[in-house]
Amino acid sequence: MDYRGRLNRLQSALAEGRLDALLVTSLPNIRYLCGFTGSAAALLVTQSACYFFSDGRYAQQAREEVQGAKIKIARKAALTAAAGWLVVSDKKLRLKRLGIEGDHLSLAESSRLRKTLGPGVRLRQAPPWVERQRMVKDAEEIGRLRQAVLLGARLFDTALKTIRPGVSEVQVAAEMEYAARQAGTEGMAFETIIAAGERSALPHGRASKAPVPARGFVVCDFGVILAGYCSDMTRTVYVGRSSARDREVYAAVRAAQQAAVEAVTPGKSVGEVDRAARNVLKKKGLAPYFTHSTGHGVGLEIHEAPRVAAGQSEILQPGMVITVEPGVYIAGRGGVRIEDMVVVTERGCEVLTPTAKEFLAI
Amino acid sequence: MDYRGRLNRLQSALAEGRLDALLVTSLPNIRYLCGFTGSAAALLVTQSACYFFSDGRYAQQAREEVQGAKIKIARKAALTAAAGWLVVSDKKLRLKRLGIEGDHLSLAESSRLRKTLGPGVRLRQAPPWVERQRMVKDAEEIGRLRQAVLLGARLFDTALKTIRPGVSEVQVAAEMEYAARQAGTEGMAFETIIAAGERSALPHGRASKAPVPARGFVVCDFGVILAGYCSDMTRTVYVGRSSARDREVYAAVRAAQQAAVEAVTPGKSVGEVDRAARNVLKKKGLAPYFTHSTGHGVGLEIHEAPRVAAGQSEILQPGMVITVEPGVYIAGRGGVRIEDMVVVTERGCEVLTPTAKEFLAI
Repeated sequence: MDYRGRLNRLQSALAEGRLDALLVTSLPNIRYLCGFTGSAAALLVTQSACYFFSDGRYAQQAREEVQGAKIKIARKAALTAAAGWLVVSDKKLRLKRLGIEGDHLSLAESSRLRKTLGPGVRLRQAPPWVERQRMVKDAEEIGRLRQAVLLGARLFDTALKTIRPGVSEVQVAAEMEYAARQAGTEGMAFETIIAAGERSALPHGRASKAPVPARGFVVCDFGVILAGYCSDMTRTVYVGRSSARDREVYAAVRAAQQAAVEAVTPGKSVGEVDRAARNVLKKKGLAPYFTHSTGHGVGLEIHEAPRVAAGQSEILQPGMVITVEPGVYIAGRGGVRIEDMVVVTERGCEVLTPTAKEFLAI
Repeated sequence: MDYRGRLNRLQSALAEGRLDALLVTSLPNIRYLCGFTGSAAALLVTQSACYFFSDGRYAQQAREEVQGAKIKIARKAALTAAAGWLVVSDKKLRLKRLGIEGDHLSLAESSRLRKTLGPGVRLRQAPPWVERQRMVKDAEEIGRLRQAVLLGARLFDTALKTIRPGVSEVQVAAEMEYAARQAGTEGMAFETIIAAGERSALPHGRASKAPVPARGFVVCDFGVILAGYCSDMTRTVYVGRSSARDREVYAAVRAAQQAAVEAVTPGKSVGEVDRAARNVLKKKGLAPYFTHSTGHGVGLEIHEAPRVAAGQSEILQPGMVITVEPGVYIAGRGGVRIEDMVVVTERGCEVLTPTAKEFLAI
């Protein structure tokens, strides 16, 4: 990964933003900048240097992973260690304006930091520079995302082999998660959603002990983490004999998803992608049942910028990777969601998820 | 669960703390107070009422789960919805002093909240009232933790059946996680740690593709979530023929763990428990290799109050559930950790983890 380039770009942003340094406290941001994959760290990026802080549990791992930063292992929590080190080193560093990540520092942490640093250092909520870099993936990242998506998609075959009336939702999830681990993933990217029958009307119906009924939709929403990068996909299948109305609802969601995918083009806003899906459902009278946004960025985190939602104005750029996942949820009847991951290209987009989207009855 | 009692106690604290309301933004705290298990919510607790906010994805689930609160489903994020509702309802509620959870609200969120509410409402970082309630478990919670611990412990049998030279760490984890799902858990409580051979010297060595070597320690640290409550245990086994020195290190960690368990008594401080473990290792010259704290509270979260660490002064009370998990990590040789969950009783403690701790070579 291009850690040096990422750090350099952040350091340019610091200079332009007239901050002497940025204290990075988001773990995915830290991983993006220096490669550390552990669960406790802080990174101090000045205009000309970079310091990594963690605790004794990660001494060896930090030496193996961290690139482009001086490693400081302390007996305290990483943030406390970074603050203490700043106080001691302040004469050398001469920090006057320290940027902090307002979204990734709790109010209590920022109060403690302010107290430790004293009045000589002014804290400023920095713009989300690292998140904005992360939003546009480079070739190596797209390669990893592609691998994660392909591996994730194979789990749908496992789901299809397992789903049948009487089998519990959690049993389906168990088989998929086992297959994911066998295939070398770090684990699932989020709690596997298997929502069958009436439960399919729950947009976030994580797999429960409920059995798959003799008849109804089964929403399968799942993803893996592979080499740090997440996949995310949803397919909805039908168990038993479907009604014409069920197939109509499915066809409407499929058309909405297709329209939204076709709207993914550099230069358009994410809000337009959302609107494309919503317009199709509106024509079918189903818009009130589409109760969430159309998608989100995916990368080191399962949910990251940009949000693909109504009214959002972020402009699509080549290299962005987003989900496109409209859904319709009708209490008492059931729900349908179809989700792909797509990468924005120079001329439009490429759908990364290889799995068919035809109505499938099993 | 005693949601009414929990809410009442929080409302008494509000009155004593001279706050008109508390805006609860920690999801485990929200679950503790009203039963909601979803991933997006805010809870506003006034001295006489309680309001629950979430978005459309959780409309049905909120109706099924939330107890003791009026449910407000909005098209916005929960916190934005709560803030907006506060502005509109402020004349009725007459909130002057609003408590916020400083540990569970980002600096950016608190800035936005301040802006939305305007100068009429003063925001105050509230003490961790809910976390302090959660620290002492009631009988129903201890019952759930007991079930989670027993189910979790069965996974060690799966590990023992799987661990052998040449099998990858991740394969061991896969079998354990599959068994956990089969047994009806919601999933694992944290990333399964299987650290074999030299990797056992990494205190947080999550299962990798590395094969179990012909000879060395294998640290297995894992836990499940069952009915919302977490388990956490560690056992370390030896593969192949051990040296006298390996067995000595193991015996020292075992003695340290035993000493710490025996120190768990109501009225003692958590720091004394930590010291008990550290003293045993000191006598064996191994204290420098014990690079983390002795334990932590477990409940709805895998890590919660109290921290069982050097210098911490929290006094143990009946009903607290903590881990006791000293370890020794020697780069190049390997590591050993032994961890039980214990519940503080009226007279001492009860070890919940049923698994033997003798040196085990396989």
